[in-house]
Amino acid sequence: MNKVILLKNRPEGKPSLKDFEFTEEEKPQPKDGEILLKTKYVSVDPYLRGRMRDEKSYIAPFEVGKPLESGIIAEVVESKNKNFNKGEYVNGMLPWKQFQTSNGTGLNKVDGEKAPLKAYLGILGLTGITAYLGLKKIGKPEKGETLLVSAAAGAVGSIVGQIGKIKGCHVVGIAGSEEKIDRIQEKFGFDAAINYKTTSNMKKAIAEACPDGVDVYFDNVGGEILDAALANMNKYSRVINCGAISLYNEIKTPTGPRVESTLIKNSILMQGFTVRDFVKDFGPAQRRLAQWMEEDKLNYLETVVEGFENIPQAFIDLFEGKNKGKMIVVV
Amino acid sequence: MNKVILLKNRPEGKPSLKDFEFTEEEKPQPKDGEILLKTKYVSVDPYLRGRMRDEKSYIAPFEVGKPLESGIIAEVVESKNKNFNKGEYVNGMLPWKQFQTSNGTGLNKVDGEKAPLKAYLGILGLTGITAYLGLKKIGKPEKGETLLVSAAAGAVGSIVGQIGKIKGCHVVGIAGSEEKIDRIQEKFGFDAAINYKTTSNMKKAIAEACPDGVDVYFDNVGGEILDAALANMNKYSRVINCGAISLYNEIKTPTGPRVESTLIKNSILMQGFTVRDFVKDFGPAQRRLAQWMEEDKLNYLETVVEGFENIPQAFIDLFEGKNKGKMIVVV
Repeated sequence: MNKVILLKNRPEGKPSLKDFEFTEEEKPQPKDGEILLKTKYVSVDPYLRGRMRDEKSYIAPFEVGKPLESGIIAEVVESKNKNFNKGEYVNGMLPWKQFQTSNGTGLNKVDGEKAPLKAYLGILGLTGITAYLGLKKIGKPEKGETLLVSAAAGAVGSIVGQIGKIKGCHVVGIAGSEEKIDRIQEKFGFDAAINYKTTSNMKKAIAEACPDGVDVYFDNVGGEILDAALANMNKYSRVINCGAISLYNEIKTPTGPRVESTLIKNSILMQGFTVRDFVKDFGPAQRRLAQWMEEDKLNYLETVVEGFENIPQAFIDLFEGKNKGKMIVVV
Repeated sequence: MNKVILLKNRPEGKPSLKDFEFTEEEKPQPKDGEILLKTKYVSVDPYLRGRMRDEKSYIAPFEVGKPLESGIIAEVVESKNKNFNKGEYVNGMLPWKQFQTSNGTGLNKVDGEKAPLKAYLGILGLTGITAYLGLKKIGKPEKGETLLVSAAAGAVGSIVGQIGKIKGCHVVGIAGSEEKIDRIQEKFGFDAAINYKTTSNMKKAIAEACPDGVDVYFDNVGGEILDAALANMNKYSRVINCGAISLYNEIKTPTGPRVESTLIKNSILMQGFTVRDFVKDFGPAQRRLAQWMEEDKLNYLETVVEGFENIPQAFIDLFEGKNKGKMIVVV
C-alpha cells in the first residue's frame, strides 16, 4: 500500500497534527509514457501555511481531503518514459505520497554526484534561489551598503546574509536565540546579530547594529520586526517582502503602524517577492549558487527529520523555530 | 515694509491660523549680483504639512519663528545680476515674503507668453511633473491596464488620470463629493469615479469600478482608501505612494491592516515617490506636459485665492478639500 498525507481541515491559528490525515491507497502503476516515483526527501517550508488557507494567492490553496504538496526529491523506480531512466532522481513540486506516477511534467533531474541530493531542496533549490533572486531582483545590494536579514538563521536568511557578504555589504541578522545569533556570525559570517527575543527595543537595536542605516532589508517574518526595520531604512532603500512567518498563523487581519508615510519620507521601495515569478532565472541562479559552493563561499545547515509520517510535525516545528537552516524530511 | 509669514508653532493635528505669525521687516535691497523679487503667485500644497513637523524627511523641517516656504512665481523688480532682467519672472522654492533678494540660485525663469504664469506652479510645475514622473518612474501604466487614482479631483490626481487616458488605461478616480466625481469624469475624462464619503464599502466599490482589478494605484491619501485599493491590486501591480493627506494631521502613529502578506501574495510593488528625487528629469517632463497642453489633451483647474495674508488659510483649506485642482494664492 501507499501512504498519503491529506489536509484534514484548514488550521485556525497555528497548525497542529489534527489538521492532517494519514491515509493509504493502492500503490500506483505507471502507464506508457509515465514513471513511478519513490519519495526520498521532502521539503517543508513556512509558505505552505498560506496554501492551507482558502484564499487567492500566488499559488492555489490546498484542498481539504486532498494531499498536501511541496518540493520533493524522488527516485525513478520504474520508467515507461524514454526521457527518464530507473535509478535517476528528480526534483519537483509533488504531493505528499510515498509513491506516485508522473508523465515528467514539471520535474527536473538532479545529479547526486555533483551535490548531495538534499541540497537540491535547499541551497541549490528554491531556498537558495529565493535568497539569490530576491536580492538580485529587488534588493540590489551594492558594495558598502547595509543588508539586514530577518529569520537570519533560517534556510533562506542564512544564504541571503552570505550572499550579502560576497557582495561586500555590512550584514546584520535577526534571529530568535543566542545559539542562532552565534551561529549566523560564526558559521555564516554575518557582521552582527540581534536576538529579538531578548531585545525590548528592536528599533534601537537595529540602529546600533546598522550605524549607517539599512539599505536593503530582506524580510522573512513581517510584523513588528518589519516595523522596526522600516524605522531604520535609508533614503532609496529596498525591502524584499519574501515571507511573513510572524503573521501566517494569525486568524484576524493583523494590524500595525501604517507604512505609507515612511515610504514617502525616504523614497523606500517595498515589494512582494515570490520565487515562482522568476522561473526563467532559475538555471543561472542555480549555477551561480553551485559555483559559490564549490568556492567554499556558502555554508548551509539542514535539519533532517526521518520518516514519512513525521512530515506534518516537521512542518509544525518550523513555527517554533526548531529547525537549524533548511528543514528536510528523509523518507 | 515687507510682510513675512512665520511658523509660530508646530501644529498638533490639523493646522490652524494660530500656528502662523505675520510679521514685518525692512524691505530688502539687492547687493551686487543679486535681484529683488516681488512675490506674485504662491503654491500651497499638502506636503508642506510634513515640513511643519520636527522630523527627518526628504526635505528639512520648517523652523519655528522662521518663514515658511513653498513654490513661488516672483517678478524681478530690480536686478544687479547680469543673468536676470527687470520684468522677468522666476519660479523657485522661496520663503513666504512679499519681497526678497536672491543671487539666482535655484531659480528658473518662466515665460508668461508660452503659458499662464500660474501654470508653472501647477500643470507645468511640480504638480504636473509629480503626476508625470510618478507614473513614469514607478507606475509604468500600460495600454489596457487599470489605473486607480485617489484625490482624483485634486491638483496632482486630475493630471494623473488624464495621463492614464493618454496612455490607454481604464482610469478610475476616488474623490470626496458628487461635484468632484462628476468633474473628474466630465472635465478630466476618467472612466469611472467613486465618492468615498458616500460609499460604505470602498473595497467593493473599487472592485465594481475596476472589473479587471487594479494594475497601478496612484495614492495621494493613504489610510483606509489605500487599504481598500490594496485589496483589489492585481499580480505584479504597482502602488505609487505619492501622498498621504489622510494621515498628515494625525498626532499618533496611525495604524491599519498590515500590508506585507498582501504584497507577497500578488508580488505587489509599493514605493514612496518624491518628485525632488528626479530633478534631472524635470525638463523633459515639463516639455512633454507642455506638448500635451498644446494638443488640448490636458485640462486643469485652479482655485485662486487673493491676498498675501490669505496664504495660511488657503493652505488650511486643502485639508477640507475646498480646492478645485491646484490651490494658488495671487499676491
